Amino acid sequence: MSSIDLNADLGEGFGRYRIPGDAELLSLVSSANIACGFHAGDPIVMRETVALALRHSVTIGAHPGYPDLGGFGRREINATPDEVFAYVTYQVGALAAFCTSAGTRVRYVKPHGALYNRAVGDAEIAQAIANAVRDLDSDLALLAIENSQLAQAGRSLGLETANEAFVDRAYLPDGSLLPRSSPGAVLTDVEAMVQRALRMVRDHYVVAVDGTRCLVHPDSLCVHGDGETAVAIVRALRARFKEEGITVAPFVT
Amino acid sequence: MSSIDLNADLGEGFGRYRIPGDAELLSLVSSANIACGFHAGDPIVMRETVALALRHSVTIGAHPGYPDLGGFGRREINATPDEVFAYVTYQVGALAAFCTSAGTRVRYVKPHGALYNRAVGDAEIAQAIANAVRDLDSDLALLAIENSQLAQAGRSLGLETANEAFVDRAYLPDGSLLPRSSPGAVLTDVEAMVQRALRMVRDHYVVAVDGTRCLVHPDSLCVHGDGETAVAIVRALRARFKEEGITVAPFVT
Amino acid sequence: MSSIDLNADLGEGFGRYRIPGDAELLSLVSSANIACGFHAGDPIVMRETVALALRHSVTIGAHPGYPDLGGFGRREINATPDEVFAYVTYQVGALAAFCTSAGTRVRYVKPHGALYNRAVGDAEIAQAIANAVRDLDSDLALLAIENSQLAQAGRSLGLETANEAFVDRAYLPDGSLLPRSSPGAVLTDVEAMVQRALRMVRDHYVVAVDGTRCLVHPDSLCVHGDGETAVAIVRALRARFKEEGITVAPFVT
Amino acid sequence: MSSIDLNADLGEGFGRYRIPGDAELLSLVSSANIACGFHAGDPIVMRETVALALRHSVTIGAHPGYPDLGGFGRREINATPDEVFAYVTYQVGALAAFCTSAGTRVRYVKPHGALYNRAVGDAEIAQAIANAVRDLDSDLALLAIENSQLAQAGRSLGLETANEAFVDRAYLPDGSLLPRSSPGAVLTDVEAMVQRALRMVRDHYVVAVDGTRCLVHPDSLCVHGDGETAVAIVRALRARFKEEGITVAPFVT
Repeated sequence: MSSIDLNADLGEGFGRYRIPGDAELLSLVSSANIACGFHAGDPIVMRETVALALRHSVTIGAHPGYPDLGGFGRREINATPDEVFAYVTYQVGALAAFCTSAGTRVRYVKPHGALYNRAVGDAEIAQAIANAVRDLDSDLALLAIENSQLAQAGRSLGLETANEAFVDRAYLPDGSLLPRSSPGAVLTDVEAMVQRALRMVRDHYVVAVDGTRCLVHPDSLCVHGDGETAVAIVRALRARFKEEGITVAPFVT
Repeated sequence: MSSIDLNADLGEGFGRYRIPGDAELLSLVSSANIACGFHAGDPIVMRETVALALRHSVTIGAHPGYPDLGGFGRREINATPDEVFAYVTYQVGALAAFCTSAGTRVRYVKPHGALYNRAVGDAEIAQAIANAVRDLDSDLALLAIENSQLAQAGRSLGLETANEAFVDRAYLPDGSLLPRSSPGAVLTDVEAMVQRALRMVRDHYVVAVDGTRCLVHPDSLCVHGDGETAVAIVRALRARFKEEGITVAPFVT
Repeated sequence: MSSIDLNADLGEGFGRYRIPGDAELLSLVSSANIACGFHAGDPIVMRETVALALRHSVTIGAHPGYPDLGGFGRREINATPDEVFAYVTYQVGALAAFCTSAGTRVRYVKPHGALYNRAVGDAEIAQAIANAVRDLDSDLALLAIENSQLAQAGRSLGLETANEAFVDRAYLPDGSLLPRSSPGAVLTDVEAMVQRALRMVRDHYVVAVDGTRCLVHPDSLCVHGDGETAVAIVRALRARFKEEGITVAPFVT
Repeated sequence: MSSIDLNADLGEGFGRYRIPGDAELLSLVSSANIACGFHAGDPIVMRETVALALRHSVTIGAHPGYPDLGGFGRREINATPDEVFAYVTYQVGALAAFCTSAGTRVRYVKPHGALYNRAVGDAEIAQAIANAVRDLDSDLALLAIENSQLAQAGRSLGLETANEAFVDRAYLPDGSLLPRSSPGAVLTDVEAMVQRALRMVRDHYVVAVDGTRCLVHPDSLCVHGDGETAVAIVRALRARFKEEGITVAPFVT
C-alpha cells in the first residue's frame, strides 16, 4: 500500500576523479539526481551515468548546482535570479541531451547543495529555478524539501512538486535542515537513519534537534554518502521497508 | 533565383567580457552560430543571444568547441572521439534548452575552431560529431566545409548537410583552408571578400593560394570578424548580392 | 609637499578577451593592481601586464580575487578563511613569479571585488588575508580602505598598511562604500571625482550619501573604469593635482 | 655508495576529490612532484601537500601541466611556446608561494603528462620550459628523461638537469616511452618493476619493447600509480635497494 521513492546524488565524478559505487547505488535507488557539470560531473561522466541509470530503470533527475567545482557546489555564491535561471536552464538542457541521445528523458529537477539551500528560503531564487524548469519543460517535476520556497514556487507554477525528506540530516524545529557546518548536522548511524525513515514514511514526523516533532509527508527520501556508505544505508532501508510492506518506487510516474 | 545563407559566430562573450556588435550582426546574417560555453559563451550570454536571434528571425545553430576558454577553442586538444561525442551532446543540449525556453529551436550544428578543423580531416572525430548530432536530433543539420570528413560523415548518416565556404580565409588547392597561423590566412580587404563571395556563389569557384581554381558549391558563407569588421563585411555582401539578384536566406528550411 | 598614489585595476583580460587601454592607463597611474587569474587575468596577460608596468616604472600590486571568472570576482562566495588564505597565497605567488622573471617584484596586495568587500567587515577573512601576505613576504604592503577589518588585521601583524580611498564610489556615513548594486553607488562625473579627490587628499574628508563628512587619510586613490573612462579620470586628476602642487607617487617606497 | 632518488606525483586531488595515500607515499619517496592547479591540485591541496612533504623531509618539485583539469593534463594541447612559458612561470610561482609560506622551497621542476611528453621531442617547447625555470630561479633543477629535448635545453642554459627513468613504463629502442595509449605501455607487475629498477640503477640499461638494451643513467626513478599501488611499488623498491646497498636520497642536494 505505502510507497516511497529513494533518491541519491550520482554522477559526481569529474575527469579522472571518479566516485566509486555509482553502479551499485544505481541498482538500489529509484531516482538518480545526476550532476550536470557545474559543481561536479562532466560530459563523459554524464553520458555514462545516464546509461547506467537506464540499465537499472532508475528515474533520472537533473541536479544543477552553482558553477563551483572547487567547492563542490556547497558554497553559497551570491548569484542573481537571472544567473540562476540561466544556470538551471543550461544544466538541465545538457543532461536532457544525454537522455535524449540514450533514448530516455529527464523527469525531474532537484537543485544541488548551496543552490538547494538558498532555494529553501529565498523566494526570488526559488522562483527563478521554478521558472527555468517550467519554461524548459512543464512536464518536469520539482523535488524540494517540504514547506520550502522552492516547493511553493513549483506549485504556484503548476509544476508537479514532490516532497523530499532527508534520512541523514538533523532537522530544525521549523522543518528545515541544520546547516552542514554545524556539529551533528549529518547522521552516521545506519540504524538511526532506518528508524527515522520509518517514522517519516509511516508516521509522518521527524524529531528535530530540540526534541519537537515536525510533520513531514515525504514522497522521496534522500540518501547521501559516497560509495559504500550510501549503498549500506539504502540496503538497510530497503530491507526494513520490505518487512514493513513499504514499496520503493519512483515519485514521478 | 539564386539564394545564399550568411552565417557568423555569435554570443562569444563570457561573464563581464562582451563582444560588441552582436545585436547589429544579428540584424544582418541569416544564420547564427551560437557559442555554447566551452570555448566562449556562458549561460547568461547564451540566453541573451538566443533572444536576440529570435527577435531578428535568424536561424540558430549550435557552435560547440573544445573546453578551452583560455585558448578560445582555437588550440587543438587531443580529445578522443568519445570525449568529442560527449562534448558536442552536452553543448548542443545546453543551447537547445535556451531555445526551447524561448519558444524556438536549434536548427543546425557547426563545430568551432580547432574542433572544426580537426573534423575536416579526421574521420573518427567527424563521425563522433555526426553521431552526436544524429543521436540527439536527426532533424538537426550539419554545416561543414565541402569535401570534408565532417560533411561526409553527416551525409553517410542521412543528416541534412550543408556546404560552407569562407569569404575571408585563404584556400589551399584541395579546397581546405590555409591554417590561421600562416601569413595571409585571413583576408582583410572587404572588396576582395565581396568579389570572392560572388565567384563562390555565382561561378562556383574560389582561387586558391597557388592560383588554381577550386570548385565550391556553398549553401552558406561564413563571415568572421569581431563587431564592426563583421558588420561592414556583411553589409557589403548584402549590397552586392542585392544588385546581383542573389537572395540572402537561411540554408535550413 | 603633498603626495598621493593613484592605483587602478589592470591586466583584467582573459584569453582572447582583452580590456583596451591598459597600456595608456599604466602610463598614468603610480600603482597597478594586477589580476592574478582567478577573477580575471591569465598567465599570458599577467606576463604582459608586468612587462608594461615595468616599462612605465609603475609599482606592482597583486590583486587576488575569488575563483569566479564568470562573475568577475564580484559575487560573494562563502569561502572559509583557510580557503581564502590559500587563494591569496596562490595568486600572489603566481604574480610574484612573473615579476621575478621580469626582474622586478610585487610590492603590495589589494584584494579584489567581493573578496575586498568581505575583508572590510569580516575579521576572520581579513585575518586570513593578512596572514597569507605576512607568511609569504612580510615586506609586502597591504592596501585597504581606512578603518576596515583588513587594515586592522594588517597593522596588527606589523604589515605596512596603506589607506585607500575611492574617487568614484559613494560613501556611507561610517566610511564604508555604498554597495555597487545600489543606485548612485558609482559616480560618473569626472569633475565631481576631481573635487572629491582634492577634498580627500587636501582636506581629509569625503561627503557621505547622507551629507555627513567622513574623515579620510588616503595614501592611495583608486580609479576604476574600463579603458577610456579610467584614462580620462586619471588625466583630470593629474592635471588638477599639478595645479595644487600635489605630487603623484607610489605609496610604497 | 650507490644512491638513487625516488619521485612520485603528489597533491593531485582537487576540491572534494582527493587521492588517498598521499601521506603514506610521502613517507616513502625522496622527491615529490606537486601538482600546481592546472591539470590537478588546488590551493588547499597544494598547501596541505607542501606541509606533508615538509613533515617528511621530502624534496619538493613543481609539477606544472597544461590547463586541462578535465583531461588531467594528459591530452596534448597545441599551446605556443609563449603560452607554455607563462603556464610554467605561473604554476611554479604559485607552488613556490606555498613553500615560502611554510618555510621551505621548491627545488626542481618536472612538467606533467602531455606537457612532459611534448618537451621530450619539441625543442621549442623544451626551450620555453627551461627559459621559464631559469628566468624564475636559476637554482631550480630540471627533472627530465635522458636525451630529451628538455634535458638538452636545461643543460644548455646551465640549469642543474637530472635524468629521470620510469620503472613502470615500456621503453622504445630510442630511450623514449611507449605512449600511454599503447597496449603494454604501463607495467603492473611489482617484481618486474623492481628488477627493471635494479638494472637501471646498477647496470645502467633498460630493455626496450623490441628487446634491445637502452643505456640509462638515472638520477631519479619515477613511480606512478594511485595510492596503494604506488605505495606497494615504493616499498618493494626500497626493500630491494636496501639489500643491494643502494641508498634512496633526493637528487637535488
